[in-house]
Amino acid sequence: MFATEDNITDLAVRRWGTADTPRLAELMTGLVQHLHDFAREVRLTEDEWMAAMQWLTRTGQISDEKREEFILASDVLGLSMLVVQMNHHFQDAATPATVLGPFHIDGSPSVPYGHDMSDGIEGVPFFVTGQVTSVDGTPISGAVLDVWQADADGLYESQIGELDEARLRAKYVTGEDGTFCVRSIVPLGYSIPMDGTVGDLISRTDIGHFRPAHIHFLLEEDGYERLVTHIFEEGTRYIESDVVFGTKEALITPFTAHEGGPAPDGTSLDRPFVTAEFDFVLQPS
Amino acid sequence: MFATEDNITDLAVRRWGTADTPRLAELMTGLVQHLHDFAREVRLTEDEWMAAMQWLTRTGQISDEKREEFILASDVLGLSMLVVQMNHHFQDAATPATVLGPFHIDGSPSVPYGHDMSDGIEGVPFFVTGQVTSVDGTPISGAVLDVWQADADGLYESQIGELDEARLRAKYVTGEDGTFCVRSIVPLGYSIPMDGTVGDLISRTDIGHFRPAHIHFLLEEDGYERLVTHIFEEGTRYIESDVVFGTKEALITPFTAHEGGPAPDGTSLDRPFVTAEFDFVLQPS
Repeated sequence: MFATEDNITDLAVRRWGTADTPRLAELMTGLVQHLHDFAREVRLTEDEWMAAMQWLTRTGQISDEKREEFILASDVLGLSMLVVQMNHHFQDAATPATVLGPFHIDGSPSVPYGHDMSDGIEGVPFFVTGQVTSVDGTPISGAVLDVWQADADGLYESQIGELDEARLRAKYVTGEDGTFCVRSIVPLGYSIPMDGTVGDLISRTDIGHFRPAHIHFLLEEDGYERLVTHIFEEGTRYIESDVVFGTKEALITPFTAHEGGPAPDGTSLDRPFVTAEFDFVLQPS
Repeated sequence: MFATEDNITDLAVRRWGTADTPRLAELMTGLVQHLHDFAREVRLTEDEWMAAMQWLTRTGQISDEKREEFILASDVLGLSMLVVQMNHHFQDAATPATVLGPFHIDGSPSVPYGHDMSDGIEGVPFFVTGQVTSVDGTPISGAVLDVWQADADGLYESQIGELDEARLRAKYVTGEDGTFCVRSIVPLGYSIPMDGTVGDLISRTDIGHFRPAHIHFLLEEDGYERLVTHIFEEGTRYIESDVVFGTKEALITPFTAHEGGPAPDGTSLDRPFVTAEFDFVLQPS
């Protein structure tokens, strides 16, 4: 049967329904249906179609190990956060998940309680302390907190290139009582990269292209759901307008400024520093 | 307001609705809505989402001047042919449009009636003759037919690389009576490129990855709609299963084999050749 404007969607759905697993068939037929519905609904023109093809091609071509432009596109369209939420229906008591983002690097070094993961990098000293517990309040000892963040210029290690040592990332392990102490620098709000195809689109809207100040955590412990999350500074700029929709009420915590003196890691600092307390509550799997 | 699974689509639609033209706002909000609807409907997992990000990135990265993998993806999903049909509602009497495909090259040389555009390339000599008319039958003189096709290996010039001369492509112009005569080689059915991301997907289905034998035409003439089309060989393989959904009943024509002798260009050939007759009917604009 030859394709017409009326039957082409059914024909394409039938073809892609022959995929070698029921799940791939479900994904591909759903994709065809929504792609065609979208094109019909907006009456897509040939010029617009061609502009879309060129945008997609360029988005792939500017991506590399330092840059994941399609993930960024998914983030700013709200798709990433939708997928995170659909796949993590935690109990209310558990710490909610948010986007992983494109900047996580596997294999960060394991470091002791209070270790300074910002060694040698400019910024205000920052301590995050707290406890990892189960939803019933039981402390979890030996839980791994994989922590990463951007520097004062908004750059993550993966955006800088090959380095000899881990930069602003480390793995902390909770003690007997489930507590941990991370030392780093105060995170700042930053702009997503605006010099690519995602920036081209964002700059044609009123959408703010900033993320509020945050620090990333990935918690893993046997018997519990893996938790990918952030903590955000209470009252920080862009908290209401996170360009990737990642903010959650339960992830916001006050950052407290200190003039100097005794710090949470047991040392004493002779310059200003900032502290935050945050307890992570894991959902049993 | 912070995003939840329930409100994130509305939030994203509201943001992208601020685009700087009403049309871009319409396109982006429609895209967000369908992207989210798709993800919700299939309950997209995080692993599937990541596989999609990697597929999109690789599809862009294998594209270059010789290869347009996103256009190929659009073709095999039926999107290209849907867009062609939505944008060309010709009268029944007019020759229907079909996909442009990724292989058209601008600026082919203008050649005289009967010119052999296959000069030096292996294949059975092939003549296409006919008349270009308006829907009321009036012959159109001076109409330009931009013609291109693949060689016996299924390769177009753009897939071969930089060449000094046009290869299997030329522009013919109709005479006073609207007639034309193209000389080339008999086109063969061919497979779409199967060594990329589109091939990866197709090979996980029962979809045939071939296109039936065809030759491309782009007709332009002041006062008429631009016509992008093919002619297909009647009874050829894959005619019912064109992988890009491009076949149309009205574009199929018999290819007639000859032992040798007088040819349509006025010469006489001492070897077998093939002829096809096809009249192009243009829609006044």
